[in-house]
Amino acid sequence: MRVISTTRLTNELEKGLIEAHPSVTFQFESSITEVTNIEEADILMTYGEDLSVSFLESAERLKWIMVLSAGVDEMPLDWIRAHDIVVTNAKGIHKHPMSEYAMAMLLGHYREMFTFYEQQKAKLWNQKVKTREINHRKMTIIGAGAIGEELARLAQAFYIETTAVTKSGGTRPFFNNCVTMKEVDSALKQADFVISILPSTKETRPFYCADHFKLMKNSAVFLNMGRGDVVDPDVLMDALDQGEISHAILDVSPEEPLPEDHPLWSHGKVTLTPHISGKSAHYLPRAIEIFKENLISYLEDQSLPVNKINLSRGY
Amino acid sequence: MRVISTTRLTNELEKGLIEAHPSVTFQFESSITEVTNIEEADILMTYGEDLSVSFLESAERLKWIMVLSAGVDEMPLDWIRAHDIVVTNAKGIHKHPMSEYAMAMLLGHYREMFTFYEQQKAKLWNQKVKTREINHRKMTIIGAGAIGEELARLAQAFYIETTAVTKSGGTRPFFNNCVTMKEVDSALKQADFVISILPSTKETRPFYCADHFKLMKNSAVFLNMGRGDVVDPDVLMDALDQGEISHAILDVSPEEPLPEDHPLWSHGKVTLTPHISGKSAHYLPRAIEIFKENLISYLEDQSLPVNKINLSRGY
Repeated sequence: MRVISTTRLTNELEKGLIEAHPSVTFQFESSITEVTNIEEADILMTYGEDLSVSFLESAERLKWIMVLSAGVDEMPLDWIRAHDIVVTNAKGIHKHPMSEYAMAMLLGHYREMFTFYEQQKAKLWNQKVKTREINHRKMTIIGAGAIGEELARLAQAFYIETTAVTKSGGTRPFFNNCVTMKEVDSALKQADFVISILPSTKETRPFYCADHFKLMKNSAVFLNMGRGDVVDPDVLMDALDQGEISHAILDVSPEEPLPEDHPLWSHGKVTLTPHISGKSAHYLPRAIEIFKENLISYLEDQSLPVNKINLSRGY
Repeated sequence: MRVISTTRLTNELEKGLIEAHPSVTFQFESSITEVTNIEEADILMTYGEDLSVSFLESAERLKWIMVLSAGVDEMPLDWIRAHDIVVTNAKGIHKHPMSEYAMAMLLGHYREMFTFYEQQKAKLWNQKVKTREINHRKMTIIGAGAIGEELARLAQAFYIETTAVTKSGGTRPFFNNCVTMKEVDSALKQADFVISILPSTKETRPFYCADHFKLMKNSAVFLNMGRGDVVDPDVLMDALDQGEISHAILDVSPEEPLPEDHPLWSHGKVTLTPHISGKSAHYLPRAIEIFKENLISYLEDQSLPVNKINLSRGY
C-alpha cells in the first residue's frame, strides 16, 4: 500500500504517520510535478487544486484521494466519480478559525475598530463614535454545516438568535430556527447578520440575486466566507450603494487573488480579507488527524468513516 | 420626596419615571450648575464626576446618591460617608459592552485585523500573515466582578480556561479557577490574556509593578479596561520594549484624554481606544432600570437592594 502526497507535511507529522503504519509506504513530495510514479499510488494526499485529468489518468491503482482542505470544486469530480475513486476532505478543521473569524469581524465592525485604529494613528482622543453591541441580534447562516454550527454556538453565547438555512432543513444544535432553502426569504428578512458559508456548486453559482438583498434589513451586514462565486460583486455593490444592506465582509472573491483594479477593494462599505478565515497554525495537524482516522479504518476494512464526499453533490 | 438629576435623560425615560411615581417630584437639569435648590433634594442622580464637597454641603435632606456610571473614584467619598449618605451606582450595565469590547479586541489582535485593513487599503492580496486562534488559551481576569464574570462566560464559550483574581477569592460561575490577590503571581504566569478590570482605589494606584510583567509569558497580551492609574505607562512600555509581554490593549489611560505627545499613542505594541469599552446605546435605559428597582424599594422601606457602594472600600 503506497500513499503519495503532493505536499510535504512537517517532519513531525510525516514521522508520526510512517511510524504508526509500518505496512504502508509513504512518499511525500513538495509538489505534484515531483511525482513521477503516480501509477504506484493507492492513496493520494493533496490540497486538491493541483489535480488534472491528465495526471489522474496514469493513476491506475488509485482508490482514495484525501484532500487537505474543504473545497473540492477545483477538482475533476466527474472523472473521479466515473473511475470509482473515493474522495475525503478535511471538513471540520475549519470550524474553529472560521467561526472565530466571523465573530472577530462582526464584533470589530459593530465596535468601529478601524475608526479607533485610525484615531490612534492620528493621536485623536474622540469618544463620539457610534458603536453597537452584538448581543440579542439575529444571525442567519446560509449553508450551515460544521462551520455554521460552531459559529451558531458562539453566537448564542452572545445571546444572538440563530437561524440555519440548509438543504434538508433538519434541526441542528445551537440553532433557534432551522429552515430549508425554500424559506430562505423569511430567514433573510429578519437577520442583522447574514452569513454565507455556501460551497460552490452548480446550484450556487450564483446563489444570491438582487431581490435577496432587497429583502434584507437596510442595517444588515452580509458576511461571505464560503465561496466567492455565490454572489456577483456587481449585484452586491449595487445593494450596498442603494442602501439595501449596510455593509459586506468578504473573505472570498469570485476571482482570487482579487485583481488590483477591482472596485471591491476600495468600496467604502466593504471589508475585504484575502481568503484567510480558515487559516490556522493548527491546520495541518488537524487535517492529518482526520486522515489517520480514515487510514486505520481503510487498512482494516476499506471503509472511510470521516468526511467522504458525495461526488455528484460536490460536498 | 424630590429627586434632582444633574443630567437630562431622554424624554421617554423622564416621562416613564414621572408617570410611574406620582408621589415623587422629579427635577431634571442639564448640568449641576443649573441646580439652585439642592437643599430640597432627597435623592440625587448624577454621573458622579461633578460632585464637590461645597455643593453637597447645602444638600441638607440628601439621603441617597444614584451614580449613573460604575466608577465613584472622583467623588468625595469620605465626606459622603461621614454624612450618612448612601451611594448606589450603575454597575452591571457595563457588562455587555465591556465584555464584547474585550472579545473584539483579543480576536482582532490574534487575527491581525489591522494588518488586513492596511492590506485592503493597499489593494494587496497577501495571505502570508500569521494569525492565531483564541480557543483553548488561558485568560486571567484581575478584579473579576460582574464585568469579569460576563467576559469569562464568553471566553469559556471559546474554550478558554478562565482564572479570577479577586480580594475574596471565592468561587464564581464561569471561572475554572478562583484565587485571591495573594496568588496573583501564579495567575499571571500562566495567562495568554491578562485582563485588568480593577477599580482605582488606594490599593490599586498603582497595582502592577515591573515584576508582574516579568512573571507574565513573553507572548502575553495585557488588556486594561478598568482604570488607567493601576499601571504606570513607563513600567508598561518598558515591559513591552524588553519583550516581557507581547502587546497591550488599553481602553483607559492615567490621564484622560491622553495628551497628544504621550508616547503610548505611537507605541508599536499598544492598541489604544479612548475609554469607550463601556459605551452603549443601551446605557441610559439600563441604568434607569437599576434606579427604578431601587426607587420602588426605597419608597416602600428605605432599602436599596441593588448596587449599594461600600464607601470605605470604594466600590
